[in-house]
Amino acid sequence: VTQATLTAVPSVPEVGPGTDLPALVVRCLRTAELVPVSGDALVVAQKVVSKAEGSIIDLTAVRPGPDARRIAETIDKDPRLVEVVLRESTRVVRAQRGVLITEHRLGFICANAGVDHSNVGLGPDVVSLLPRDPDASARGIREAVRAAFDVSVAVLINDSHGRPHREGAVGVCIGAAGLDPVISLVGRPDLYGYTMRTSTEAIADEVAAAATLLQGQCGEGTPVVLVHGLALSPPAAGAGEAGAAPLRRDPARDLFR
Amino acid sequence: VTQATLTAVPSVPEVGPGTDLPALVVRCLRTAELVPVSGDALVVAQKVVSKAEGSIIDLTAVRPGPDARRIAETIDKDPRLVEVVLRESTRVVRAQRGVLITEHRLGFICANAGVDHSNVGLGPDVVSLLPRDPDASARGIREAVRAAFDVSVAVLINDSHGRPHREGAVGVCIGAAGLDPVISLVGRPDLYGYTMRTSTEAIADEVAAAATLLQGQCGEGTPVVLVHGLALSPPAAGAGEAGAAPLRRDPARDLFR
Repeated sequence: VTQATLTAVPSVPEVGPGTDLPALVVRCLRTAELVPVSGDALVVAQKVVSKAEGSIIDLTAVRPGPDARRIAETIDKDPRLVEVVLRESTRVVRAQRGVLITEHRLGFICANAGVDHSNVGLGPDVVSLLPRDPDASARGIREAVRAAFDVSVAVLINDSHGRPHREGAVGVCIGAAGLDPVISLVGRPDLYGYTMRTSTEAIADEVAAAATLLQGQCGEGTPVVLVHGLALSPPAAGAGEAGAAPLRRDPARDLFR
Repeated sequence: VTQATLTAVPSVPEVGPGTDLPALVVRCLRTAELVPVSGDALVVAQKVVSKAEGSIIDLTAVRPGPDARRIAETIDKDPRLVEVVLRESTRVVRAQRGVLITEHRLGFICANAGVDHSNVGLGPDVVSLLPRDPDASARGIREAVRAAFDVSVAVLINDSHGRPHREGAVGVCIGAAGLDPVISLVGRPDLYGYTMRTSTEAIADEVAAAATLLQGQCGEGTPVVLVHGLALSPPAAGAGEAGAAPLRRDPARDLFR
């Protein structure tokens, strides 16, 4: 029987700037007597990665520029927040109806460039940014788990993003190590021998979404989820680590920019 | 420890037009000695629902009209397929670069209105459409499981959709019974007591995505996945069944139509 298990790693303590998150993940796994095996995935909520790495900013220290003030007025947002969002972004995609959607410098298109106010817990004006390099964050945790348990696990950093066309945020992968985040079904025959020509599946986003169900939107209560049973493969030797980049749609192929 | 388990229901036989799918799901659960409990979810791949209900069409019998021929020429697709897509749709959203994205009559915006060629297995020109009423399909399975096991499970019909901005298809929910597909975090305090103001989470899409990891894109090999451990609640008494409708973004709030 094909079975997968998602386990919220218990008793993860409060994370703050300077926390050694890879070491903390290993320690929590050991305390809970959870032993990862090769092919497992660890999904870590963006919020704790950002806090551990100090990717936070106190809005009281932010002086909004003219662009931020103009946009903030249009969509009725805190101009200091808009200033931070613009600094994190390469482009404004939509700014209307109270919503600010930008292209983050990492290439993701999402609301507020991932800048978020909830569950930071460092003061009423402190917001979190996305990690500077979520793929590197994932690699760091992957290497710590390899060193501790001698196993090759995939590590995903997840965040909750809203989406065009559909209501509700869902967990998505914003950083990855140790797996191909998008698998190709191109040319693979279907059950009846027809050749499937165009399909790809964003398995990293599906794993990220599954883990979000256990993390809740908060992330911090149980920010780390161990996923067992999917037999995830690391990228082929020599192919190198692409991180989460394959999840970003090539602008030339995106009909909704 | 918070834990969720996804189990691909084994030995689901070939489904064809006329198969009593609710009865088949119950029989397969019994054969595998899988006993669902209240709060579990069953995720059933759209393809087997469509086949069981006869939502299939032989393209050799389709005569494309002028709109279909014109669009097919533009995007280099089979005009008979385009004709079927248009019949299933209320509106063309994008038709460019080889891609046809429409608003399905059920309100979902997706490629080819969900009309699909793979894993139908009824001849080279037979394609599947989305079920006529996927919420009703879900309700039928939910009631059969309730009658057989005296439990209240959520039932989701899932399909794989591509998305703006991100590469790769992911599993999404196109039909639902027995749960609120979008939960609101609005006004719920975060871990530190701040009030979260705007968040909603599309848990039905997250469950659908998780199940897709076990189904693969094919769906037919292991089209039914039992999800245990998430303690999903049915809609509040009196609220009635909204099905998957809450997952469709109100056009007035969709910035990417």
